[in-house]
Formats: sequence, C-alpha cells, structure tokens
Amino acid sequence: MINSFHPPKRILMGPGPSDVNPRVTAAMGAPTIGHLDPAFVGLMDEIKELLQYAFQTSNQLTIPVSAPGSAGMESCFVNLLEPGDKVVVCQNGVFGGRMKENVERCGATAIMVEDEWGKPIDPNKVEEALKANPDAKMLATVHAETSTGARSDVKTLTALAHDHDCLSLVDSVTGLGGIELDVDGWGIDAIYSGTQKCLSCPPGISPVSFGERAVEVISNRKTKVQSWFLDMNLVMGYWDGSGGRTYHHTAPVNSMYGLHESLVMLKEEGLENAWARHALNHKAFAAGVEAMGLSFVVEVDYRLPQLNSVTIPEGVEEAKVRAALLNDYNLEIGAGLGALAGKVWRIGLMGESSCKTNVLLCLGALDAVLTDMSAPINSGKAVSAAQAIYSA
Amino acid sequence: MINSFHPPKRILMGPGPSDVNPRVTAAMGAPTIGHLDPAFVGLMDEIKELLQYAFQTSNQLTIPVSAPGSAGMESCFVNLLEPGDKVVVCQNGVFGGRMKENVERCGATAIMVEDEWGKPIDPNKVEEALKANPDAKMLATVHAETSTGARSDVKTLTALAHDHDCLSLVDSVTGLGGIELDVDGWGIDAIYSGTQKCLSCPPGISPVSFGERAVEVISNRKTKVQSWFLDMNLVMGYWDGSGGRTYHHTAPVNSMYGLHESLVMLKEEGLENAWARHALNHKAFAAGVEAMGLSFVVEVDYRLPQLNSVTIPEGVEEAKVRAALLNDYNLEIGAGLGALAGKVWRIGLMGESSCKTNVLLCLGALDAVLTDMSAPINSGKAVSAAQAIYSA
Repeated sequence: MINSFHPPKRILMGPGPSDVNPRVTAAMGAPTIGHLDPAFVGLMDEIKELLQYAFQTSNQLTIPVSAPGSAGMESCFVNLLEPGDKVVVCQNGVFGGRMKENVERCGATAIMVEDEWGKPIDPNKVEEALKANPDAKMLATVHAETSTGARSDVKTLTALAHDHDCLSLVDSVTGLGGIELDVDGWGIDAIYSGTQKCLSCPPGISPVSFGERAVEVISNRKTKVQSWFLDMNLVMGYWDGSGGRTYHHTAPVNSMYGLHESLVMLKEEGLENAWARHALNHKAFAAGVEAMGLSFVVEVDYRLPQLNSVTIPEGVEEAKVRAALLNDYNLEIGAGLGALAGKVWRIGLMGESSCKTNVLLCLGALDAVLTDMSAPINSGKAVSAAQAIYSA
Repeated sequence: MINSFHPPKRILMGPGPSDVNPRVTAAMGAPTIGHLDPAFVGLMDEIKELLQYAFQTSNQLTIPVSAPGSAGMESCFVNLLEPGDKVVVCQNGVFGGRMKENVERCGATAIMVEDEWGKPIDPNKVEEALKANPDAKMLATVHAETSTGARSDVKTLTALAHDHDCLSLVDSVTGLGGIELDVDGWGIDAIYSGTQKCLSCPPGISPVSFGERAVEVISNRKTKVQSWFLDMNLVMGYWDGSGGRTYHHTAPVNSMYGLHESLVMLKEEGLENAWARHALNHKAFAAGVEAMGLSFVVEVDYRLPQLNSVTIPEGVEEAKVRAALLNDYNLEIGAGLGALAGKVWRIGLMGESSCKTNVLLCLGALDAVLTDMSAPINSGKAVSAAQAIYSA
C-alpha cells in the first residue's frame, strides 16, 4: 500500500536544488490551465521578458526549455552543431566533460582545453586552441562550474571566440542570478541555465537564450536538428507570438507558474542586489569556514559565492558528516563530484539559500558535528567569525 | 511592471491537460527536497511501482522521463534505433507523423503505413508492410490518437510485430489510465505516455516502460544514443537503485510529487474502475452530442471515450464557439489538429475531467452557445439525453 507523500522539510545547501520560497511553491500549486489558454500565452510573454532581464539581453529567442538543465545544454549543442563541425570545449570540471559528450553525440569534434579542477579556464590556452583550429565553429565554456565552485571569465573568453570567428556558447546553470552576467554586454551568442540554483525554483526547466548570430546558424542548417523535442526552429513557433502560436509540445504549465514567480521575485530584489547578497553571505560563510581551520578548493579571486567546495578535514568520514547534518539538522549539503569526490563538500549558498540564517545554521551545525567526531578543527569559532562579517 | 500570476480557474475539456485534482496540485506545492535525498529516492521507488501498476507490467525499466510526452516519444526512438535501421510506422493522425520525424532524425528509415484520420490502424496493411520489409527492426503504433480520438488494436499489432521478429513500440500518451492497456499481457516492448491526459497531472513528465528485449537492444548498441539527456544507459543508473544511485540529471522534484499523488489516486480507484468511468461518461456525453444533432468523426467501435472529435455544424465559426465557452463558462475545449483543423472540436473526458458534472456542464454550455449563434442543432435536448444514461 503506497500512501500520499509528505516530504521532510529540508534546508537545501547542496549544489542545487536550493531552498524554494513559499511564494514559488504556492504558485506551482495553483490550478492548471491549458498550454494554449490566452492567460497562459500572456504568462509565456512575461516569462520571456523576465528572462531577458535576468540574462541582461534583448535576444528574442530567450525561453525556458521544458526540461532540466541537461536538456538546456543539449538544446544548444543540437541546434548549433551539424555533423563534421569542430568545437573548442573548455573543461575544468564535470560539466565541461558533459559538453564534450554532447558535441560528440552531434557527430562533431571536440577540441579539449583542459584546466585543473578548481581553477578557472585559462584564456591563454583557449587562444592557442582557437589559433590552432581556425575551422572551429564554436567555443564552449562553463561560467560557473558546479562541480568545483570556480568562476571563469566568460567575458574575455567570448571576446576571444569572436576574434577567431567562433560562436560563444556559455553554461551558466549555476551562474544566473548569483553572479554578474551580461549576455548582451559580453556578446555571448548562446547560453543555458537552470531554475534550481540561484533562481531558487524547483528543478525541471532550463532557461536558454540565443543571439542573432546563433539564430542565423539555426535557421540556415543543412541538416535537421537531431532532436525533434529540442528543435528551436519548431519551438520558436510556440514561443514567438508573431505568427500565431503553433502547438509544438505541451508546456509544463505549473512549473512555468513557479519559474514566473521566482523571476518576479528576482526583479523585485534587483539583479545587482541579488549578486551583492550572494557575495556578502559567501564572505560571512568563508570567514566561518576558515575560522574552523577548513579551507576552500578555489582561490578567492575566482571563487563562486554560491558554490563552496570545502576541503574535508583529515580522518573524517565525509558521508557520515552529511548524514548527521541531514538527520539531526534537516540540512542537506553536497558531496564532491568527479575528481573531487570524497575530497570536498559542496555547500551551496544559492538564491533563497543565500541568507544569514542558513550561513549561521550551517556553520553551527558543521562545527558541532565535526566536534562530536573529534575532527581536527578549531571548535566553537565559526559562527562568531561569520557574525563579525555581518556586523562589520 | 510584472506581477505575480494568478491563473483563471478553468474546466479543462480539451485534448490535455485535463483537470487536476487539488490533491495533486497541493502535492506539487510541497517544499522542495534534494533529488538525491533518501526521502526522494524512496519516492522514486514508489513512482516506479505505481507506474508498473498503471502500465500493467513488471518491466524494471519503468520510469518517468523528466520532460513532456514529446521527450518520452523521443527517448524511445533514440534509444532503440541506430542509423540505418528500418521502422514500420503507422500513421492515422498527427502523432504517427511525429514518429516518422523521430525515426528520420535518428538516421533510420520509416516505412509508412497510412490510414484515414479517424480510422484505426488496419492490421492487414501492417502485416503486408512487415512481410515486404523483413529487415524492419520495429513496428511503431499509436494506441490512442489524440488528434482524432481513434483507438487502435495494439494487442493485435504487437502480435504481428513479434510474428515478424520486430519490436513493438506503442504511443499511449492519451491511452494510459483511460482505456484498457496491458503492457505485459500484450507483450509490448516499449511504450511512452504523458501525465496530463488520463493521469490528470500537470504536463511535464512522460512515463515510459521498456521490456527485456528492448533493454537488450539498448544495452547492445553499436553507437552511443544521440541524446545524452535521454540515454537510458545513463538514466538507468539514477533510477535503478541496485548499484547505488548515480547522479545523471536533476529530476524535477515537485513535478514528481504531483505524479506520485496522481498515481496513488489511480491505485485507490483501481485501473478497471477508471476505465469503466471513462466509458460511462463518454456514453452519456455521446448521447447528448447526438441528441443535439452533432456527430462523431470516429465510429463507436473504436472511439476513444476520453477524446471526442465532434463535427462542427454547418456555418458555425468554430473559434468563436471555443472563445464563448472559455469566456462565459471558463470551459476549455480543443480545436482540430492537422487534417481535422477547422472540421472538429476535440472534447476531452480524461482523468478528473471524465465526470458527470463536466459532461452535463459541457453539453449545456455547448447547447446554449450554439443556440445563441443560431446553429442548426436540436436545442435543449442534450443535457436530458445524457441524464438519461446516468439514470439508466
């Protein structure tokens, strides 16, 4: 006998999903209407406008893909690439590797530029790769590596791409809403993100934006896009009202309610204020972590405020710490991924989760759990170190 | 200035989404937890078990794809096909055509078997096509054509596929939960559905099931699946707990809450009872439609109770009727699609929408609106004709 499900109330400080504001979950629980209802079409127009604000773009093709971030990533690659194309792909964590998978599954070739995990993408190496591959069509970079917490300078990388007549494709799944991002100002040609990071919406939708050059590439393909579901030539007919809405697929109506509300909240706060909030809470959290004697994988200059890879103290069984935080504090933090598995915790301060109460609670809980396990830390210092930042 | 969105309260009697029970929307609005949380993993196991019940299968690979029905369709084709394969595709409406698109985008060849829109797939034609194409790998059929309302005999078609050493792939987006479906009993090898039809869940998730032979085909591919996001070899690692859960993509947590609750409700009612309810409400609705003097595109023997294609009376501007129903009654019915555009209304009696109140309300509203427009109908007869069926 299976009964109704009642989720435990968690505090979400992993690599996403982040805490969701009750305004957003309430919006998701509103009555369903049809995906071709005039009221829903109005909602779609508003979501588009709000996403343009979040991305800082006037790109017409700025829409939420009806599936999680991985599908948003895939929608960029399958629309922009054709078999035989060449792409310079930068990898400094898990998600650069996933880009490579996407390129190859499109029948294209990935020229890999690799950097150490936890370091940003090195523009010099990228320039070399672009010079060595004058036939490359695109440069693919990760703005905010969720697996490590490193921020790369996609403004500079995009300029390099353009210098070498390449499109610039950016993964900002964890970046959007948490750190500076200026799609039009930086000239990014195509970008994808997710809802469950700094937008603090439940997972399931992937905002994407394509600039004019990218749309031209999509419109002038020689071959059909290999995915019918993600074919922007078809999706455009549904999201672009100019020729009347054409049914493509059935949009996830209630998830769109949630996304809309989270974007309304972002607009209310203001992008710059949201970035500043993420920066401040990180600063306080970092002060606490360091006061405990723990350290960060990523140097402060290119560390993401929203994704903190914290090294695990000697002799501590990391999974036991996560289990204790979950069971005793209802607090979720993330494990390491890929090359950093077993070496770090990934602690998210994303969107709603980037707040003073979460910072203090997490530091206090981590301090208590590690002290209980006799871990080699400076006990009892973390919370007051963070408090000091807030009081400064 | 964009404000919070408050959807109008509609009665959904189009081709999907159908009305959603408040238990399901409430579940969707519950607090978000992590996609790797032990509580969420438990939910995943329950969803799998409930979907096995709904599909009537013991297939291990029975999961909800994290995207709408179109992506569920695509997940079947991209996993089962490799370039150069040949597929016999039956088309008697829009969705057979979409299958052809999918086949071709996989680099495979579609042998089309066409039937008139509104008629079921003719097994004799299918047998001929299978005989003429002994190298075909798969037969693809639509159980319940959402564009016409015709039911095809996928039990017989599946047996034919097996006689000719082909896999049987079935689209039951609109069938699941509304009419008899027995995946194991009929030997279907792969099937996809949607949540927003007879399961009465908001759109966004696509239940799929793959039998042993299909899994063998997927496991022994020579080429990688062209979609990373939909690659079942990877998705299995997340949904199959045997080797520990491997992160693949971030599941749409709140949408899964909703699906779980809708499946709990289906189990509470019982599949056979749900089928009987759909049959009864259709019978009453049909009596009303015919009493009005309107007719059905699809003959009663193979008419879907959940999707009613009703012919538009002479001289009536069909879009005005839909607009009047929406504006004056908050009632959504669907337009015709493809070859039937402008010729029919598609009136859904799916899931929650398949109930006496909706039947009576829709008949009364349609009668009043058509009478107002001086349409050539027998006014004032429809509701009592339906009442008579319920009283019988």
